[in-house]
Amino acid sequence: MSPGPPRRPAVVIHAGAGERRPEIDERQAEYRTALLTTVDRARAVLEGGGSAVDAAQAAVMFMEDEVEFFNAGRGAALCSDGTVELSAALMRGSDRGAGAVAAIKRTRYPIAAARAILDRSPHVLLVGAAGDRFAAAAGAEQTDPSYFITERQRDRLVAEPARFERGTVGAVCLDEQGMLAAATSTGGMRGQLPGRVGDSPVIGAGTWADGRVAISCTGDGEAFVRAGAARLLALRVADGEPVDRAADGALAEVAALGGHGGLIALDAGGELAMPFHPGAMPRGVWRSGHEPAVWA
Amino acid sequence: MSPGPPRRPAVVIHAGAGERRPEIDERQAEYRTALLTTVDRARAVLEGGGSAVDAAQAAVMFMEDEVEFFNAGRGAALCSDGTVELSAALMRGSDRGAGAVAAIKRTRYPIAAARAILDRSPHVLLVGAAGDRFAAAAGAEQTDPSYFITERQRDRLVAEPARFERGTVGAVCLDEQGMLAAATSTGGMRGQLPGRVGDSPVIGAGTWADGRVAISCTGDGEAFVRAGAARLLALRVADGEPVDRAADGALAEVAALGGHGGLIALDAGGELAMPFHPGAMPRGVWRSGHEPAVWA
Repeated sequence: MSPGPPRRPAVVIHAGAGERRPEIDERQAEYRTALLTTVDRARAVLEGGGSAVDAAQAAVMFMEDEVEFFNAGRGAALCSDGTVELSAALMRGSDRGAGAVAAIKRTRYPIAAARAILDRSPHVLLVGAAGDRFAAAAGAEQTDPSYFITERQRDRLVAEPARFERGTVGAVCLDEQGMLAAATSTGGMRGQLPGRVGDSPVIGAGTWADGRVAISCTGDGEAFVRAGAARLLALRVADGEPVDRAADGALAEVAALGGHGGLIALDAGGELAMPFHPGAMPRGVWRSGHEPAVWA
Repeated sequence: MSPGPPRRPAVVIHAGAGERRPEIDERQAEYRTALLTTVDRARAVLEGGGSAVDAAQAAVMFMEDEVEFFNAGRGAALCSDGTVELSAALMRGSDRGAGAVAAIKRTRYPIAAARAILDRSPHVLLVGAAGDRFAAAAGAEQTDPSYFITERQRDRLVAEPARFERGTVGAVCLDEQGMLAAATSTGGMRGQLPGRVGDSPVIGAGTWADGRVAISCTGDGEAFVRAGAARLLALRVADGEPVDRAADGALAEVAALGGHGGLIALDAGGELAMPFHPGAMPRGVWRSGHEPAVWA
């Protein structure tokens, strides 16, 4: 087995698919800066020789912390009872190792809870207080549940309680070893029933990575679950389909079930796809040897 | 579009893959009776013109209630702290409607909680107390968490706390309308961390139904999740593979990730597969016009 040509590290991020929000149009420059900073967090890891897992986690942690534009972690959408419940997943392509949490309330960076499970547990998915406890035992920072609740999300829940706006972020990365990783983090849909779990922490629905492709989805979570969207995309890539065609096919299957949204996918050769429909999906890309590009 | 030839209703059930237990070998006749009764519960629904969803639910409810041989519902495996946490999923092939619960503690028939979500919620998966609350509001019988704990499982947890024995049951059915459904219910692995969720309630991992095939898996849950096992099998059937070959391929992918177990799969033409490796997987089949058959 020859090691093959050197791989080009690459990063793709998304900040959720959904309706275009007017306040974001008014703050394009700031939003672009936030997207560029996200891309740079992953890029810095990869340029330092770090792993795709570390890079994807770094990008998502920045978006979880950022409160103005990204609705994961702090600033996440509120459940119908005004609480925040957080879900995240991290998957490593090389061995398909995976860690995920759903409906946690205390871990400052939900993706760090997923990482703790990936690194330290034979389990893949821990839900509720168990996810926080496991993360805390692994050293992940804990906080009061109120930390995640912002005034803006409280106002939105009051103004439009039944408008199921999503807030999901994700990153897929390829490192110089040719390894892929995918990370997704979300507070779910505004007004969702507490305890509801969407596609983000469901391996094969909203998050997936194997030796050929890494995927993070966003949109109507239930339709992505019922489509098995990420697994479908990955199998078509395994069958030899180009990643952009496989991505379109997965979204078409979601649409056939009445769902909308978008996804990012990056293959081991550095080819990528970022389809979404309808509305907007803020996103960014960096490939080694190129300038980063973002779409707000 | 012609309606085609009349479909033959069919049922396949499993009672979990794992090591062959000596006490079951000593009670073969009783065990076979329990399996036959399970098959008959689904058969009665189908012979009465009922739906595949109703039939699969009926078979699983019998196994959840039965306490001597089937380790789902009452008699389920205990978590490391001696509690019982229950998960279940139900998926309807015709429209890929799905309902699932994970880590619930109070709903007497966990598959009835999944059914309530399938019938009455835009969500697919509810975890923890939210799953019980939703089921209760839909009229599903609630019970004290201690109801599910049996002396035998308590003894096993003390004797072999680190032996990750599984207890999962499942049913896949085809009704006379040609509709498919899949149902799975489990208490997880003995000694698991509370809050751990395996493959059973994860649509596309342990449970799946579409217009072509219905699937219920059992085994090393994390490997089934990382394989996207049920979604893989269904896609290969959609690609034209016979269901037995697709089933073997899915188990091979699980095995490549270090996992063992089994599954049942039934296609819209009434063809079925029941592979498992290694050990045993008690199972049963009924097809219209034939006598039921069981393997204890």
